[in-house]
Amino acid sequence: MSQNSPVYPIIWQKDSVLLIDQTRLPNEYSFVEINRSEDMAQAIKTMIVRGAPAIGIAAAYGIYFGAREIETNERQEFLQHLESVASLLRSTRPTAVNLFWAISRMLKAAYETMGTVEEIRETLLQTAQAINNEDLQTCLAIGDNGLKILPAYPEKLTILTHCNAGALATAGYGTALGVVRSAWKEGRLARVYADETRPRLQGAKLTAWECAQEGIPVTVITDSMAAHCMQQNMIDLVVVGADRIAANGDTANKIGTYNLALVARAHNVPFYVAAPISTIDFSLIAGSQIPIEERHPAEIYQVGDNLLTPGGIEYYNPAFDITPAELITAIITENGIFAPNELALCQPRENIMEVF
Amino acid sequence: MSQNSPVYPIIWQKDSVLLIDQTRLPNEYSFVEINRSEDMAQAIKTMIVRGAPAIGIAAAYGIYFGAREIETNERQEFLQHLESVASLLRSTRPTAVNLFWAISRMLKAAYETMGTVEEIRETLLQTAQAINNEDLQTCLAIGDNGLKILPAYPEKLTILTHCNAGALATAGYGTALGVVRSAWKEGRLARVYADETRPRLQGAKLTAWECAQEGIPVTVITDSMAAHCMQQNMIDLVVVGADRIAANGDTANKIGTYNLALVARAHNVPFYVAAPISTIDFSLIAGSQIPIEERHPAEIYQVGDNLLTPGGIEYYNPAFDITPAELITAIITENGIFAPNELALCQPRENIMEVF
Repeated sequence: MSQNSPVYPIIWQKDSVLLIDQTRLPNEYSFVEINRSEDMAQAIKTMIVRGAPAIGIAAAYGIYFGAREIETNERQEFLQHLESVASLLRSTRPTAVNLFWAISRMLKAAYETMGTVEEIRETLLQTAQAINNEDLQTCLAIGDNGLKILPAYPEKLTILTHCNAGALATAGYGTALGVVRSAWKEGRLARVYADETRPRLQGAKLTAWECAQEGIPVTVITDSMAAHCMQQNMIDLVVVGADRIAANGDTANKIGTYNLALVARAHNVPFYVAAPISTIDFSLIAGSQIPIEERHPAEIYQVGDNLLTPGGIEYYNPAFDITPAELITAIITENGIFAPNELALCQPRENIMEVF
Repeated sequence: MSQNSPVYPIIWQKDSVLLIDQTRLPNEYSFVEINRSEDMAQAIKTMIVRGAPAIGIAAAYGIYFGAREIETNERQEFLQHLESVASLLRSTRPTAVNLFWAISRMLKAAYETMGTVEEIRETLLQTAQAINNEDLQTCLAIGDNGLKILPAYPEKLTILTHCNAGALATAGYGTALGVVRSAWKEGRLARVYADETRPRLQGAKLTAWECAQEGIPVTVITDSMAAHCMQQNMIDLVVVGADRIAANGDTANKIGTYNLALVARAHNVPFYVAAPISTIDFSLIAGSQIPIEERHPAEIYQVGDNLLTPGGIEYYNPAFDITPAELITAIITENGIFAPNELALCQPRENIMEVF
């Protein structure tokens, strides 16, 4: 693929989905074809597709594949089987709420379609495609809304980000990297600093790759260098994505985000979260209620074929952490910019949460 | 080597030095034999031997090897050549002051020996061995002094450390890990949490290996997980080493230390620096005067044979950062425990700084 071509991690083609295999980037840019619900569940679990909005979209197509696989044409039996497909897809990853949001929206569409099973299947495909398309529009809106929070000086800003909240994590364009892309298009960006984001290195592998694809200047640092960079006045602002935001503004995001928010506060560097409103879980009062996924320790002790550590030791591998609302300058959404303690003001696109 | 045998990274044997090759740990526990000053400089530069006190000891032996290589028996000519050897060894790494301290002490011993060149050589060997032996005693004293700062509750403490300030970084026993070892012997230690310490992974590779050797329970986390662990009340105190401490208590240590000090402060977790008095550079008023080594970006983009990042991007790889004195609860030395703003009270073993 040539320089400067936009990145779409989830592409509907004929009757299947092509996923960019994000476990092989940046060394290999290849696609995996998925057309079964179980394969989609596996792709989400193994992080072939990852990023909160992207796994919501992927799961939506997974529901459609499940609907195609159900052999009955009897409506009640069909819906019962569809609930099993939903359970399978919900069990893949616990933290990102977009997964649950997208699955709920798909089920709601099925229940509200009063025609034949074949008509329900058709509705489900249209709904999955709508979720995909809307997410791209949402990211473009987030990026443009992000322009409003850019400080006036310096003219060319240095933005630090963590993990990958980019095109690869969404339908395209990205949330945190959506803000970066919009800043770049407006001539307001000097450079992105990308935390490498151990253990899975999404910053070093994915954010760096996305930026390099589009010629956006990017410098990779290790996660623990952010404080030093801020001490040297090298960073103008931080923008990260989110996997789930509680009603009070507490935000679950990739492990290390909380660490970064603390060091940003210590240096008075503004710290923004960029996320679609579907990432806000209004059913949770505070971040302490968000379940934190713990992943396999091999993510820590192994890089490629290299074993890093000796035998006889233990590991702790939480995949996310919770940043308290008070450390977040503001949350950038498709509907505007909100103080983390004023999320009730933002209008959910639909009141989907009630079907949880 | 059997379990529970103490680790000595620098061993004088016959007429050469055996260094544990720390670039091969934990997969391979092997020694490199060094008997030339240039090879010692190379071993320091490539981090076969690393850790502030250890590179001081290694450089002292390097000076002796240089003295052995100088062919003249004319005192003035000999001393002149010895200065060149000193320059070579000083040029290896800029941040740790123990390197400069040990070299200065060796040169002072040479200048103060009034006999023949052969007698100077003999003095230099004795001085290098004294530096080595004293450092081991110093570490034992730091470890035992560290017991005084352990909080009374809980009975079994969880101590977090960064990088490797262990036996491998010293003559043996360690500074930060000296405190850990003493706590373990006293039955006060539940577990060590070891930051993996990107980019070179000294925590995952060296600290984990040292602890496993002695059966000390150790859990490896990525650097960015420390804040999350503290938020979950999993950490009772932090102890780290130091590469250079300015007169005002500002401390240069492995990159990520400043980050860790900030997150410890945010959670009211005590943050201690454990270091020999030779690490204090009384000639520097503040940490901003400490030179920070920047190392090759391959440390970030490559792990073993694995290239992590795409082409066309940049890197920033500072090897150390500066933790301001106000974030340090106290500094644990062989002469006692000092508030970082009261370092003038600690007595240098000798007034060696004047020969800088």
